[in-house]
Formats: sequence, structure tokens, C-alpha cells
Amino acid sequence: MKGQPEIAKFQFRATNRWINGTHNRGTINGYYGAGQEMSRAQDFTFDADHPPVLVGGDNGPTPVEYVLHALAACLTAGLANIAAARGIQLTEVQSTVDGDIDLLGILGLDDTVRNGYQQIRVSFMVKGDAPAEKLRELVEQSRRRSAVFDVLTGSVPVSIDVTTA
Amino acid sequence: MKGQPEIAKFQFRATNRWINGTHNRGTINGYYGAGQEMSRAQDFTFDADHPPVLVGGDNGPTPVEYVLHALAACLTAGLANIAAARGIQLTEVQSTVDGDIDLLGILGLDDTVRNGYQQIRVSFMVKGDAPAEKLRELVEQSRRRSAVFDVLTGSVPVSIDVTTA
Repeated sequence: MKGQPEIAKFQFRATNRWINGTHNRGTINGYYGAGQEMSRAQDFTFDADHPPVLVGGDNGPTPVEYVLHALAACLTAGLANIAAARGIQLTEVQSTVDGDIDLLGILGLDDTVRNGYQQIRVSFMVKGDAPAEKLRELVEQSRRRSAVFDVLTGSVPVSIDVTTA
Repeated sequence: MKGQPEIAKFQFRATNRWINGTHNRGTINGYYGAGQEMSRAQDFTFDADHPPVLVGGDNGPTPVEYVLHALAACLTAGLANIAAARGIQLTEVQSTVDGDIDLLGILGLDDTVRNGYQQIRVSFMVKGDAPAEKLRELVEQSRRRSAVFDVLTGSVPVSIDVTTA
């Protein structure tokens, strides 16, 4: 890949369709990578919604919960890859991610409160055939190379365009 | 809520369990909000994996695709809420989100390349019983109040702890 940097360029995609209220459905399939358009055998579809206490119908997780899921999944996949590369056999990896949001921000009731998470905490439980120190290093290296950790702790330029017909 | 700011404090959560290779499964259910512990009638579970070209089995979307899904879902739910508040009847809302990642970053092959998305683009198609300008304003106001847009374009403190037995 180092001699052919073009094959390292990926573009991922998701589409979404509004259903009603806060309920909408996302679809994930095609992406560009390794120099070509790629697709899966079938679409992955995911409903998102708000809970009743936030005027939704609980037809799926909230968008912000999907973000926590993405972070756990990214750190876990990385950790497993790094363990394999280092010859460490994992027997169990579990994690919990939680994040605090103060709705006064989203609702526009307090300009000093941000819209998104104020803090996110990740707790890993890792078991495998290596000393505790080596297992901890797997998590640390995964964090260092995690795409989702990067986009949450850093800043991504996001552009939005709108068509109305 | 302004008179009782405590009920605006929410904590969302996701748990994850490693299955094998880059395949892992996330579970979303309980959260704290409106002053109490809340739960859904059933767990939401989501597999994540890498595609074969990234040494996975395509058992689910990649973690970074879940991030794009979360962004589309957040902007769409917000847009629908704002339309309802403004008395605009929506008939169709669709969106596509794409993001560019150069794997030279994640793979540690080029220190000048970030791990995460270099750029994310969102395209909305909105139809409803209001002039184009009013429909565009819905997207703009949703962006302004979106929690997922905020965490991607801003920076969130993320702490990670590890237990090994």
C-alpha cells in the first residue's frame, strides 16, 4: 500500500430516509476502496428514533447512541487486529461506553451548553493469554489508530447541501 | 425544563462484545434521562465488522459507516421536529452522507494523514408544503442544533479505562 498510495483512499457512505416524526431509516452498503467501487451481498438497514420522553416512538436507538456504538466497535476491531499481529490470543473483550448530554444545549435554552456530548467514557474488560500490561497496551494502540476516536476527539469539516425538488 | 435544569441531563450508553476478528456486536438499551433510569422494551443489537478487503467478514457495517448513519439520522430527526414546530408538512426527506478516509493514517504508514474522516459531505433532498427557502432553513436550523454534527465538527473529551481480569 505504501508503494501504491491510491489504493488506501476510501469513501464510505450512508443514506437515510425519513419515516415520520423522529423515526428514520438508514441504509449502508456501497463504498469506494482499494481502487474500486465495492458492495455487500445485501444492504444493512438501521432504524433510528427518539424515545417517548424525547417525543419519539423508540423505533430504534437515538443517533447519539449510534455514535457510542461506533466508538466501541472501532476500538474493539482495532484491538483484535493488533492482538492478532502481536500473537496474543484474546478470550474475551467487552466494553461499555457512556456519554453525557445536557439537553439545554439542543433545545436552545442555554447558549453556554453544547449540543453534543460533554464527555464520553469507555471501559474495557480484556482477557487473553498475555500479562495485564500487554493487554492494556492493545487498548492504547487501538486508541492511537482509531478512526472513530479521532473524529470524536478531533474536528472534521462537514458540508451540507440541500435540494428541495 | 428551564425551571428544572436537572431533568435536561441525559446519559446515553452502548455496550459491545467482541465475537472474532474484526466482528463485534453492540447493544443499546438503558439510558438516564428526565431524572430517572430509562429502558426500552427490548435491546437494540448491531453487528459491526470490516469488509473482506479490510480483513473482515462483512458481518455488519464498519464503525465509521455507523458514524455517517448517526449524522444523517440526527439531522433528519431534528429537521422533522423543526418542521412540525413551524407548521410545515414534510412529504419526503432523503439524505446521503459520504466521508473520505485515507488508510495510510490508520495503518501508521504516513504520520501526516489523520486516522479519521478528512471530510464529510451531506446531501439532503427535502419536499414539503413550504417554499424552497423555508425548506432549506429547516436543514440549517437542524444543523445548528444537531448533537452528532456538534461532536464531529467539535471535539469531545474521551477517557478510556481498562480492566484485565
